Amino acid sequence: MMKKNTSGPIVGFIGIGVMGKSMVLNLMRGGYDIHVFTRTKTKAAELIDKGCSWQTSPAGVAAAADIIITMIGSPRDVEEVYLADAGVLAKARKGAIVIDMTTSSPQLAEQIYRQAKNLGISALDAPVSGGDIGAQQGTLSIMVGGDQEAFEQARPLFEIMGKNIVYQGPAGSGQHCKMANQIAVASTMVGVCESLRYAEKAGLDPTTVLQSIEAGAAGSWTLSNLAPRMIKGDFGPGFYVKHFIKDMNIALESCADIELRARGLQLAKELYDQIAADGGEYLGTHALYQYYK
Amino acid sequence: MMKKNTSGPIVGFIGIGVMGKSMVLNLMRGGYDIHVFTRTKTKAAELIDKGCSWQTSPAGVAAAADIIITMIGSPRDVEEVYLADAGVLAKARKGAIVIDMTTSSPQLAEQIYRQAKNLGISALDAPVSGGDIGAQQGTLSIMVGGDQEAFEQARPLFEIMGKNIVYQGPAGSGQHCKMANQIAVASTMVGVCESLRYAEKAGLDPTTVLQSIEAGAAGSWTLSNLAPRMIKGDFGPGFYVKHFIKDMNIALESCADIELRARGLQLAKELYDQIAADGGEYLGTHALYQYYK
Repeated sequence: MMKKNTSGPIVGFIGIGVMGKSMVLNLMRGGYDIHVFTRTKTKAAELIDKGCSWQTSPAGVAAAADIIITMIGSPRDVEEVYLADAGVLAKARKGAIVIDMTTSSPQLAEQIYRQAKNLGISALDAPVSGGDIGAQQGTLSIMVGGDQEAFEQARPLFEIMGKNIVYQGPAGSGQHCKMANQIAVASTMVGVCESLRYAEKAGLDPTTVLQSIEAGAAGSWTLSNLAPRMIKGDFGPGFYVKHFIKDMNIALESCADIELRARGLQLAKELYDQIAADGGEYLGTHALYQYYK
Repeated sequence: MMKKNTSGPIVGFIGIGVMGKSMVLNLMRGGYDIHVFTRTKTKAAELIDKGCSWQTSPAGVAAAADIIITMIGSPRDVEEVYLADAGVLAKARKGAIVIDMTTSSPQLAEQIYRQAKNLGISALDAPVSGGDIGAQQGTLSIMVGGDQEAFEQARPLFEIMGKNIVYQGPAGSGQHCKMANQIAVASTMVGVCESLRYAEKAGLDPTTVLQSIEAGAAGSWTLSNLAPRMIKGDFGPGFYVKHFIKDMNIALESCADIELRARGLQLAKELYDQIAADGGEYLGTHALYQYYK
């Protein structure tokens, strides 16, 4: 790997949203020299103030860096940033590592991997779970697909951004693992919302019900962490309904691809589409509780 | 409460299945004098050897005891044992407490409560979670509905049989709480099975996927405890498909009663009906994994 005259590789980071910004701040604390680009420059202002180099395009970041990380909106954005004529793959140097940490399509991750490989570039797909707080605290769970050698080279960066760093297998495997995560989340959320609304409609005190059921076979992260917020009527994110729908769409396409009929996921997607249609795209995912009346 | 010349109330116990037997053994260790009846006398042989008094009918148990506990098969059995002409309510003494620990219908629990009250008998509904092992170890979670005074009188018995003893409210509330538990379990199981089968069909190693997702937002008791058994192909109970279907039928009737459209529960019931139709009634509930191919 090329080294600059700093202590490590030059890092490029594309996509400075809530997650990306926290991840860059952690990498800066780790001593990395970082070039950033994001569509709305004001979102990067704090990072630039603190010493990040601003680039005016993904191509600029790609040309400047040894390891390029992306944390952007949707598979369509990922496709454009990586595969456009002036995209990351076209401009990255030979021997560079590109890491997409967006939750995106496994099939697209495989495509980027193949094109990258032809250009002498290593591509990893490395989506995360753990949300805003995980990104801030550097405790993200990071699920990685691609060549194991590239994974090992990128590991020091992953270890700054996350805590539970797991190599899942060849290109696309990180995204597949994230889809497995979201598929479990989807039906668990359905169960928790139905359970709590049932309790309420049956005249029970939902908090007292939690005392009975939280530690047993009905227990889940969702029940312990989101049910109390449902009970309080606090439906802010958390994780946006809009983004969860995006993830479920990717998962459903991937299910079609591997011929899995995931009926729980289909149901969850249908329920969340209704919430979005009712104007709830920017509520937290636990707003599904409100669907049950 | 009437006291015999032993240290506490005489306890009657009807229904010596796997759970009931362990519960009686714990009560015996607690020093209680116990009268038992179960349909198949051989199932009570060990308890009789150890000093339980055998009664030849529910009525016999009811007449002999101050506190009568039932742990039987289905709401129909509960109805018969309590409400038949020679049933528990007809034969229990005034001032007795009857406790149904079967997972049964909340509406039936309310009916038994009302009839009992008219006869000067206190009725509690107190279903449990925690399974065979919880029953053996005296660590059941017990969810109790009925009059709080009767609950307090029965509490010493509950504390011998369980660990997480929660008073949920008036008659039927214990059963409603158990239904809330089963509703959460149902969709969580769907999510875990779909997630794991997705991972497998996508070519990932499911155990490695668990490393990534178990501790985060996808985490659940089911994922931590049953997914490893799914991966190993070990589909023995655990909790029988047959009994889970019984519980889901009660929950669906109760949902109809309180006008809740629990679509996740409906889906789970449909999937489990298919497993039963395919001969899987005596598999563990996590055999749902096999449904996804």
